[in-house]
Formats: sequence, C-alpha cells, structure tokens
Amino acid sequence: MANITKKVSWSSRADESGAAGEGTPLLNGSEQPRLSRQQSEGGSIFQIGRLSTVDLEEEITSDEDSIKGRPKEIPHNEKLLSLKYESLDYDNIENQLFLEEERRMSYLGFRCLEISRWVVCGWIGFLTGLIACFIDIAVEELAGFKYQVVKENIEKFTEVGGLSISLLLWAVLNAAIVMVGAIIVAYFEPIAAGSGIPQIKCYLNGIKIPRVVRLKTLVVKVCGVICSVVGGLAVGKEGPMIHSGAVVAAGVSQGRSTSLKKDFKIFEYFRRDTEKRDFVSAGAAAGVSAAFGAPVGGVLFSLEEGASFWNQMLTWRIFFASMISTFTLNFFLSIYHKNTGDLSSPGLINFGRFEGDSVAYNLYEIPLFILMGAIGGLLGALFNILNYWLTIFRIRYVHRPCLQVMEAMLVAAVTATVSFTMIYFSNDCQPLGPEHAEEYPLQLFCADGEYNSMATAFFNTPERSVRSLFHNQAGTYNPLTLGLFTLTYFFLACWTYGLAVSAGVFIPSLLIGAAWGRLFGILLAYITPNSAAKWADPGKYALIGAAAQLGGIVRMTLSLTVIMVEATGNVTYGFPIMLVLMTAKIVGDYIVEGLYDIHIKLQSVPFLHWEAPATSHWLTAREVMSSPVTCLNRIEKVGTIVDTLSNTSTKHNGFPVVVQPAKLCGLILRSQLIVLLKHKVFVELARSRLTHRKLQLKDFRDAYPRFPPIQSIHVSQDERECMMDLTEFMNPTPYTVPQETSLPRVFKLFRALGLRHLVVVDDENRVVGLVTRKDLARYHLGKHGLEELQLAQT
Amino acid sequence: MANITKKVSWSSRADESGAAGEGTPLLNGSEQPRLSRQQSEGGSIFQIGRLSTVDLEEEITSDEDSIKGRPKEIPHNEKLLSLKYESLDYDNIENQLFLEEERRMSYLGFRCLEISRWVVCGWIGFLTGLIACFIDIAVEELAGFKYQVVKENIEKFTEVGGLSISLLLWAVLNAAIVMVGAIIVAYFEPIAAGSGIPQIKCYLNGIKIPRVVRLKTLVVKVCGVICSVVGGLAVGKEGPMIHSGAVVAAGVSQGRSTSLKKDFKIFEYFRRDTEKRDFVSAGAAAGVSAAFGAPVGGVLFSLEEGASFWNQMLTWRIFFASMISTFTLNFFLSIYHKNTGDLSSPGLINFGRFEGDSVAYNLYEIPLFILMGAIGGLLGALFNILNYWLTIFRIRYVHRPCLQVMEAMLVAAVTATVSFTMIYFSNDCQPLGPEHAEEYPLQLFCADGEYNSMATAFFNTPERSVRSLFHNQAGTYNPLTLGLFTLTYFFLACWTYGLAVSAGVFIPSLLIGAAWGRLFGILLAYITPNSAAKWADPGKYALIGAAAQLGGIVRMTLSLTVIMVEATGNVTYGFPIMLVLMTAKIVGDYIVEGLYDIHIKLQSVPFLHWEAPATSHWLTAREVMSSPVTCLNRIEKVGTIVDTLSNTSTKHNGFPVVVQPAKLCGLILRSQLIVLLKHKVFVELARSRLTHRKLQLKDFRDAYPRFPPIQSIHVSQDERECMMDLTEFMNPTPYTVPQETSLPRVFKLFRALGLRHLVVVDDENRVVGLVTRKDLARYHLGKHGLEELQLAQT
Repeated sequence: MANITKKVSWSSRADESGAAGEGTPLLNGSEQPRLSRQQSEGGSIFQIGRLSTVDLEEEITSDEDSIKGRPKEIPHNEKLLSLKYESLDYDNIENQLFLEEERRMSYLGFRCLEISRWVVCGWIGFLTGLIACFIDIAVEELAGFKYQVVKENIEKFTEVGGLSISLLLWAVLNAAIVMVGAIIVAYFEPIAAGSGIPQIKCYLNGIKIPRVVRLKTLVVKVCGVICSVVGGLAVGKEGPMIHSGAVVAAGVSQGRSTSLKKDFKIFEYFRRDTEKRDFVSAGAAAGVSAAFGAPVGGVLFSLEEGASFWNQMLTWRIFFASMISTFTLNFFLSIYHKNTGDLSSPGLINFGRFEGDSVAYNLYEIPLFILMGAIGGLLGALFNILNYWLTIFRIRYVHRPCLQVMEAMLVAAVTATVSFTMIYFSNDCQPLGPEHAEEYPLQLFCADGEYNSMATAFFNTPERSVRSLFHNQAGTYNPLTLGLFTLTYFFLACWTYGLAVSAGVFIPSLLIGAAWGRLFGILLAYITPNSAAKWADPGKYALIGAAAQLGGIVRMTLSLTVIMVEATGNVTYGFPIMLVLMTAKIVGDYIVEGLYDIHIKLQSVPFLHWEAPATSHWLTAREVMSSPVTCLNRIEKVGTIVDTLSNTSTKHNGFPVVVQPAKLCGLILRSQLIVLLKHKVFVELARSRLTHRKLQLKDFRDAYPRFPPIQSIHVSQDERECMMDLTEFMNPTPYTVPQETSLPRVFKLFRALGLRHLVVVDDENRVVGLVTRKDLARYHLGKHGLEELQLAQT
Repeated sequence: MANITKKVSWSSRADESGAAGEGTPLLNGSEQPRLSRQQSEGGSIFQIGRLSTVDLEEEITSDEDSIKGRPKEIPHNEKLLSLKYESLDYDNIENQLFLEEERRMSYLGFRCLEISRWVVCGWIGFLTGLIACFIDIAVEELAGFKYQVVKENIEKFTEVGGLSISLLLWAVLNAAIVMVGAIIVAYFEPIAAGSGIPQIKCYLNGIKIPRVVRLKTLVVKVCGVICSVVGGLAVGKEGPMIHSGAVVAAGVSQGRSTSLKKDFKIFEYFRRDTEKRDFVSAGAAAGVSAAFGAPVGGVLFSLEEGASFWNQMLTWRIFFASMISTFTLNFFLSIYHKNTGDLSSPGLINFGRFEGDSVAYNLYEIPLFILMGAIGGLLGALFNILNYWLTIFRIRYVHRPCLQVMEAMLVAAVTATVSFTMIYFSNDCQPLGPEHAEEYPLQLFCADGEYNSMATAFFNTPERSVRSLFHNQAGTYNPLTLGLFTLTYFFLACWTYGLAVSAGVFIPSLLIGAAWGRLFGILLAYITPNSAAKWADPGKYALIGAAAQLGGIVRMTLSLTVIMVEATGNVTYGFPIMLVLMTAKIVGDYIVEGLYDIHIKLQSVPFLHWEAPATSHWLTAREVMSSPVTCLNRIEKVGTIVDTLSNTSTKHNGFPVVVQPAKLCGLILRSQLIVLLKHKVFVELARSRLTHRKLQLKDFRDAYPRFPPIQSIHVSQDERECMMDLTEFMNPTPYTVPQETSLPRVFKLFRALGLRHLVVVDDENRVVGLVTRKDLARYHLGKHGLEELQLAQT
C-alpha cells in the first residue's frame, strides 16, 4: 500500500500559497500586502468615472514576454515541475454574459458559426499547404544550386588534385547557411528551435507555452528550416511543418494578428482557448498531412497527441483541414513540376510508390520484422539516451546564443567533412542508370559511366536518400557502404537534434533505419545464398527498418503506422509496420522514454498523461489538492482583489467565489478580474452613472490572449474602497469533487474535460481546496513506485 | 429565446417517479407499498444467518429475457423515447471494496492486467477473423454450388426451351435457403436481424440493448447471414461481421459463457460494464477490419460511433485487435485459396487493386466528383425515406414471425424472378475473356464465346459484381444494362433492408453506386466523344459512385473514407472519396437522417449525440433533471430497500445515499442492492455471527451481468426489520452538478465520462434531482427549434 517514495517537503507548496494566512482555510484577501500596496500607491488621485481608454494591446509587458528574456534557465532535473507554465482554459466559462449571448443566438446563428469553423479549417489547410510548398521549392532550388556548385568544384579538382579545396568549399558553404538559420533562431525566437513537436504536444495537452503560436515564431521557423536543410545538416523539414500548421491555425482562427496590430473583426467568437485549441489541433494535423501526404495520419496524430474528449464534428473538421492541406501542396507542386493537375504525388516527403509484386510479404518474414522492430527499439533508445546527455550538457554549458550559433556551425562543418571523407574513401562504384538523371551523381574516382554509391546517400537531401534506399534495385549499395553510413549518420543526427536550429528528426531517423534495414535485407540474402530470390527486394527491409528506427525514437504507433502507410501509398505493409512499431515501442519504453517526452520532461512541463498512475488509488483529492485556497466574495472590495492579484508569491489564476458562510458559488479567473479592473466595473460607478456601458464578452475577447499584468493597471486609493460584483462574470457552475475522491477519478474528470481548476468541496459545499494541473502532474510512476515531483519556480 | 415547442405534459414523468410521495423532495422509502408487501409475504419465516446458497445464475427471469417475449412492440413514432432501455455503468463504482482491491494491487498486478487486456484483444481479433473466414468460405462454397446447379439447368433449357422451369428452380432454391435464415432469426433471436450496426452503435453509445452480445445471437447471426447471401438476396455479409466481432469481444473478455454455463475463472477483473464496453469497441473494430480489410478504418469506426473519452492505450488495443483480425482472415483465406502465406489480399470484400496509371485523377474531375456526391446524397436520401415508410409498415402489419418469414421468402423469390427477367430480356452480349474464368458466365442467347453481361451483375454474389464493375475494362457493360440494373437493384435492396434476416446494407449500396457510377463514366465519354481517352476508365467512376451511394445511405465520413481507401489498397483516391462522402452527407442530411439513425430513432432508443442541441443553453439542470428522487439512508431498513426496489411503477436503477439532513454522501445501484439482499448483508447478521463472510467484489462480478430481479429474492418478515449498512458498497464520490448548470454543460460531463446517473445538488449539497440518459436524450433539434420527446413505457 505504501509503495511511494517519501513525500518531498511541502515547503515549495507552502510558498505557492504564499504569505496568505496559513491558518485560515479561506482567505478573502490578507491585510498585510494590501497595506504596503496602499502606501506605495497612496499618492494617486481617485478619478471616479474615468473610463479606461487605454488600448489594452499597447502597454503589454505580460508574462509571456517577460519569459522570453530567460529562455536558458531550463532546469535540468527531470524530477522538477516548473511553475512557469499555465494551463489553457479549455473549459467554457459559462458566466451570465456567455449564457446570455448563447441564448440570444438563433439556430441559424449556430449554423453560421459552424460554417465559419469549416471555413477557418479550409483556410488553415490551404495556408499550411502553401507554406509546405514554399519550403519544398525553396529547399529544392537552394540545395540544387549548392550541390551543383560543389559538384562542379569536385569534378574540377578530382582530376587536377587538391580535393581539400572542395572540402573546404563544401564545409564553409554549409556552415554559412546554417549560421543564418541558427542566428535567427538563437537571437530572435528561441522557441522556434527543434522540430516544435514537443511544444505542440504540450499545447494540445492543454499547456500554454509562451510564444509558441505567434507569427514571428512561424517566420523564424520557416526560414530556419530552409537554412538547416540546405545547410546539409542531418535534419528533415517535416517536423517543423507540424509547428507551422499549428501557428497558422492559431492565427487564422483569431481573425487578427497581434504582432501586426491588425484586427479583421472576424471570427471574434473564436477568441478563447477552447476554440483556439481545437483549431490548433486541426493545424497540427494539416501540418502532418502536408509533410507526409498523410491526411488520415494527420488526424490520428492530433488525436493521439492532443485529444481528450473526442468530438465527431471536430474530427471531421480536422480531417477536412488535412485533406485541403495535402491537396493544396499537391496542386502547387504539380504546377512547379510542370505537370499541372496531376494530383497523385502527395506530401513533402514522397517515399515513392511500392507497387506490384515487390510489395508482397510472407508469413515467415514476420519474425524477421519483429526482430527488426526490436533492433529499432534498442537503437532508438540508444539515440535517446545519447541525446539526453547531450541536452543536459547543452543546458549547462551551451546556453548563450553565440555559443549556440557556433555549435550549429561546427556541426554543419563536421557533417560536410565526415560526408566528404566517407565519399572520398569509399570505393563502391555503381553503373550510372537513367533513373538517376535528377540527382547529383558524383563520379569521383569511379570509371566513366559509374558513380560513387556513398555519395547518393550523403551528397543529397535526406529525403532523396531515403527514397533511393527504398527503391534502388538490389545491388546498388554494398554492405560496407550501408554500415558506415548508418554509423556516421546515427551520431550526426543525434548531435544535430537539439541544436538551436529549426529542424525535424523524422527524416534522419527514417534514413538511419532505411540504411540498416537495407543492410539487414542484403545480409539475409548473404546468409541464405541458395534462396536469394526470396529476399530479392532489400527496399522492403529498408522500409521496415525505417519504421523501426523512427518508432524506436519517437514512440508513436497508431498515427505513425498510418503515416507510413499513406506515405508509401500502399496498405499492404500496414500489418508488418504496426508489428514493428509496437515491438520498437515496447523494447524502447523498457529502457528510456521517447525523444519528445524526454525533451518535455527536461523542460519540467506539467504534462498530463492519459491516465493517472496505476497505483495511485490510495491518494484522494484531499491529499492532492492545493490548500488553503484564496477565495473571493461574490461582492468583493476592489482593494482586496488588487492585493490578491498583486501577490507575486502566489500568482494564482483561478479564484473560487464564495458567499458567507464560505459556500462555493462560482469561479473567476485572473484574466477576467484584470479586464474588470481595467474597465473599472465597480458597483459604485454603476450606481453613479446610469449610462455606464455594460461590460460585454467582446471586452474579454479583445483582451484575449495577452491580458495585461496587474502591475499595469492603476487603481487609486479611493477606488480601492469600491466594491466589485462578480456575479455576472464568474462561472457559476464550476466542476467540483468531494474530498474523498480518488486521484484516478479526479484525473479522469480533469483530463476528459480539459479543466484548469477543479474545486474540492466538503459535505457542506464549502471550498477546501483547488486541484490544478500541477497537482496532478506531480505524481508519476518512477522506478520505485509512485513518486512525487518537486515544484520549482524556474 | 423561447424557440422551443410547447413542452409535452409531464404525466409520463410523474409515472416514472411513481407513487413515491409526490410532495417530499427526498423519499426514503414510502410507507404504502411496504405495507402491501408485508402482507403478501407475511407468512415467511425469519431465518437469520441462513446464507443464500442459491446459484445466482440459475433462477434468472431477468428483464432482458422478459423483453424477448415482446419484440414486436416497437413504437413507431419517432417522437417517443422508450423507457425500456437502460444505460451501461461506464463510470467506475469506486466504492470501498473497489478501492481496497486497487490499493492492494501492486504495480506488477496492474502490468499483468494490462497484458491480459492485450491478450484478450488478440483473441478477439483472432476469433473475429476466424468467423469472417468461416462465413466467407461457407458463402463461397454454397453460392458456388447453387449457381452451378442453376447455370447447368439454364444451359440445359436454353436450347430445348422451357426456361420457366429454370426460373422456378432458381426462385424456389432462393426462397428455401432464405426461409431457413429467416426462421432462425424470427423465431429464435429477433435481435440478430439486420446488419446489427444500429445495435452496436447504441451499445457503444452506452445503452444496454438486451441480448445483443449473447452467444446465441452470434450463432443465429452467422448462420443467418450465410443463408441470406447464399439465398441471393440483395445483401452483404459485411455489416453482420461488426456485430459478430462485438459479440466475440463481449464473450471473450468475460472469460465465461452464461449461455453455456461455463466459467473459465479468468478475466474476472473485466466483469463490469466499463471494461466490457471497451472490449466491445475493439470487437466492432475487428469486425470492420475483417469485413473490409481495413484495420485503421475499423479503429476509426469504433471511435466515430462509440468513443467519448479518447484513451491512447485503448485505441492501440483496438488497433491491435483489428490488425490481428485482418491478419487471421488473410492467413486462413490464403490457405483456402491455396497460396498459403501470401498475405496481400485482405478483407472479406476485396475491391481489387487500383494500380498504375488508371488511378490518377485530374483537377477538372473534382467538380464531377462533387456532382456525383450530390447525386449519391439524393439517391441515399430517397433510399432512406422509402425504407423508413417500409419499416413503419412492417412495424404495423408484419410483426408476427410467420409473416416475417413469408415476407423474406417472397423477397427472395421476387429477387430471383426479377434477376431472371432482366437477364432474359437483356441482349447485351460480351466476348468471354479469360479473366472471367472464376465466375459463372451465362451464355443464354448469346453467340458462342460470348456471355450475357446482365448476368455478371445479377447472377453472382454481390461482392463479385462490385469487383467486376470496378475493374472490368471499358465496354464490358452497355449503358442500358447498367441503368436497368441500378433501378431494379435499388428497389430490391431497399425492400430487403429490414427483413427478418441477418444481412448488411454496405454491399448493396456499393453495388448500386458502382452501377450508376460506371454509367456516369460511360455517359461522360459519350458526351465528349472527341476526348474519350480522358474518361477511359469507367471503373474509377464506379468507385466514386459506390462511395457516394454508400455515403448517402449511411452518412459516415471519416471512417468510411479510410475503409474505402484501405479496401482499394490505394491512397490516391483519398481526397476525392472524402469530398464525395462529405457532399453526400451534406446533401443527404438536408433531407433525412442516415439509415442507421432512422432505425435507432424508430426504436425510440435514448441515443446521446456528441453535443447537446445548439440552442439549449437556456435550459438548466433544474429543468432537465428527474425529481423528486428516491433516496436511501446510509444505514437503511431492509424493508424499505425491498419496497423501493419492488415498486414496479418506478424501476429506478440508481439511488443517491444521504445522511440526515439529506446531504448527499453516495450513490448505489439497483444491481448492487440486489446482490446485497441476496447475500443478506444485514447489520444484525454481521453482529450475531462473527464468522460471517465479508462480501467481496467477486460476488458482484459473479452476478454480473444478469442480476436477478427483486421478485426472486425472498426476504422474510423478520429480515425486513433488519438494517443494511450501505457505506462500504455505495460509490462515495458520485459526480454532481449544481442546479443552475446549463444543459450543454451537463451534457458534456455526462457524455465525456459515460455516466449513467448524475446527481443534482443544491448549495447545501442536498440532493434535489437526478439526471439520467433519458433526461438528456429527450431534447433534440427538430424543424421548429428545440423539441422534447415523450417518454413511453414501450
């Protein structure tokens, strides 16, 4: 029963509830801070009736921005839980204003809303497709140009000697391009680093990650990923597409851009977290769909990573966005490739079609596939462990932007050097067939009419390398080439992931897996020489290897199966791919978590999994909840509210509203109180001026999502004595649980409804505590049973 | 604001709460019925300490069985809501017994449970695959035999004249085979009629449909579907697979068969509705997967139809079951088709591969696809309306089993006659190619080396007809043949659906759609003669037409898209199929609901949709809830409990448990009380005998799911005076909402967590009402805004 490690001290939690009167369970504003506040603001003059005309957008120095200043303070202990992340308000705040608006709306109004949701999803799909198209064409053109220059240089020097100059050219070119990408990421928008998938996972999980869905992030992300791929790093352009799609969704659905200070006055209804999160899941799906030509995979990705309550209409909209996105990309690429209107080559990555007899697999191959899955799981776990150490190292020592840029350049130069060395010392010459017309075959020291086989793997964008590993006929690569390539690329990719560049890990994983998978296929043929025809197609094993490696690293199963199936354009491999992914996941999970989860944990994000830890039934809401809770009265003094909000030691975001004797009657959010204070919705003012404009939902929507901090709101001494009536604005029916509710039950309610605050009440409906995301995320299953994470301010 | 039609009278609801003291809000047992009960049982002797040793399984005359006697009393007014359907208890009853068991379990225990869940899913997949295989082989063999006999007969009489004898033979054969199928359905298990999809939809929605997941149902279903397909009806064998999979899942997961009186003593942990429903969703997915070779489609079907709270692990298990199911079917069919181990032809239905250049489609074809979608929507709506009238007619006049059997035989004979006539009068002769070797080409009046083209459509199992419509080269069918075939098959299929035979509507829909789709393709080529090459492939239009027609009838989109994509083995058509299905759904929904929804509505099932009606924000829990509520005290007199349960006018299933003064402290179910009474868990007995065995969760699990009715439990006069302590058994933390909660909010909580009872409390945590499924399902959006359905006892 007591399989929990000793509970950590509660000091950090006591901090959280702050100086706010430890003894009393209900704190309707404490005297001490209020007084100090009074002194500091004592000089301000009471200006009753002066409506605030200040534009809310202008004077923002909000939390989100203040965080940007210190992106390096990532705690590097995964036993911590950061307090800096807030939840999204996925639960509708059904206050009187909201209900009145809903009640006023006719059935036709709801139909229009529904239609505009579809329109927004169409736009999300379209724009995401366009961005994918832009990235693809930019990479294609720039990389083509780069490889052409280097190739000509190499050809020039192959004969006259002095290939070191070619190497230098290649390395410098790579480093320069990567430098641009690293600088914009490191200096302008650090959140745009990496693939963005961990961040989007967190967002869809219901966590507000600062700056993650801003326009600036999108611009940096797109430019960054072009630089990384063109710069020859071991990266893919697919992961960032998911992030890009999410940003597009968050932007389009709001009908305005805060960064560009442009409000189109449309879609105002969608300006709240509930709607926004739904659209962002559509955007992420559209991103996956564009990246892999996998609309169904995109939907499943969004659901696997983000969904809690499954809603049919929402799922259809997500699917619609995904389809439009693939279609758009497809259409514009077909124009670019000069066969307009031919829509049969979807996706940024195109694995090429597996067709005809080569796709068949047989029963006796299934154990081999499972074995490959296990290998993939092991290699994936190794990758993740190495990357984990590297990330810890980076957090400790490489946290200044200039260092980050230099590391990225170093990696770029090393990648070029290693590639060059491998190509140089490889003597795997293959005859040049007509099918290589579009690539960059390097002849080097091979005979005329032949090309260097190692160069097809290294001297190429990773997407093309994957495709040639899948489809080149047997004998194109010799085993040594593949082995060396696997080894070097594995370490290069591992080093690259986590650099301050915008780049994904999907393609490198696929490439590593395809290489050793093909090697595996070739070795099979060697081992059983008399039945060589059986294993005639190493491309099949390359595909399975790619799936195994990718599954071993990222540990997705359902969506990844579908993505692979859709990207190969063939459902026959569905079953083996699923088996392989399952095996890779089981083997890998036994050793270490998935790459994305590692990075999420390293950020100490309060991520909620699908279910509460299995052995947590003996914990109840009483033990889990934060208590005491700062409550507000239904009609509360302005001073009290200001003091409560100003209390920097607590930073609470939700306040139960009570009527005496302490009965729960509602819940109000910090953001709402801020807007109320801003507009000076005080009882006295309402009485004194009959024409006082009634606060509307629109006022809250205009302020969303960047609510100003309390410090920017000026409340005079006289105003502090006014009263505020919260009745109209509070959510009168917050979800509650009794104190005896078990943790799994609390967890299920919280997760299924995407809550931010869950009020714990006693038999008499009195507030005794509040359960938030951090209270639930604290518990996790460690090696020694249930463990509790420490809360940290970082 | 008041866009609701006048509320219906509350008389039916008053009935529901029964004679139970209208005036008082809290009814802790009413005196009147208790007294009458006392008199009737006055003679029985008080036997304290006599433990009940009666096998719970033996003396069941439960509700479920009693319903079987009157399957004909289906109310034929869709404005009614039947009271005979109960909800599943999807919410965990977290009482002390349960929590103790969970707390005793170690982490390893939970791992073992998780593993056994996977094992169960594996078995579900395997057995479902086997059943699919059995059906397929049986149909193949029997239909082959039948067509051979008829063909030989026709050939014999074509030359000598007297084809009417052949017609008679064909019609009699069909009618005889269908008779067998209809008799077992109509007389032994009426619930096995139809495709079973509406029933499974309801089950996954959380409604307990009596007898739907029993072994007997499965046997009748499987035999019935073989008879229907072999009998030449316009039906498919795919729909019933979904039902079969669900039954397999419900059986395997329980580790016992109540019908066979065999308990394997395994998987006892899974003997509750929560686990069972999860497994049934896996079974349904496995069924879809086996039927269409579409594992992902199966998962999506289960989610689209059944899911509320999305759980990643559950989804993976569902996916696993689906994969195993396709694999098993595949493997055994490959043995049957004598190419063991070739796993590349999945699914009961095989659309054949769309490969090569023929799969490409072009931008200008998209408007055409949309047009076809609209046609499909219109035709589907027409189909549904006709079938709706037919069903009403059947409910009124064809409700005796013998009539049902006769109708089925009539349809079979008419189908044969119509087919024969069509073939007879058709003069569409086509040259006999080698690819028709496996079918039954009828020469009839064609020249030697030719065959009758109408016969490939009619004289064949529907699956083969669909395949030939998709893949036969251009020119195989002439337009008149296709037009006539569409027309006749449309009405035949419409007449057939709803007969008392076990059969699905998927394949007939696909066949109708494929026929007019091919016609559409051929006509396109006619209209634009100079660019005939463009429309060279009518098979593509057949596929799109099939999707449109099926979408127009059943109105699924996401899962159907994936099913079609997986069944064609090609993802290229994903986008057009989605467009077509969307269009068909939008057009169709404008006219009438989907076929399954119509049949669900005709059964007056309290089906909960995804969201509350849009314009229901002005309703609150206070108006929605049932009140007054029969409550029980925490320590309650046995007599009161017996009387409450025996009150036939109410039949409540959940009772809030209160402590004075009326504070809510728990919730207990009828089924729990029954078990408690059965085992005589009385306070006095526990005191008098120290060795009294403590009731365990096992006792509840043994009684699950067929709890005996209260009438079968004998409580003596003295026992009635004993007290029962409910503390240990009640759920101490039921979900509650305040009275002011809006309907959408109540709905969301209810739906997301799959609740059965939701307690409405006032400010003081006193019980004021109870929201059940029927209270929520009553409200729906009709033509004149929000409407309320009437509750009916039928």
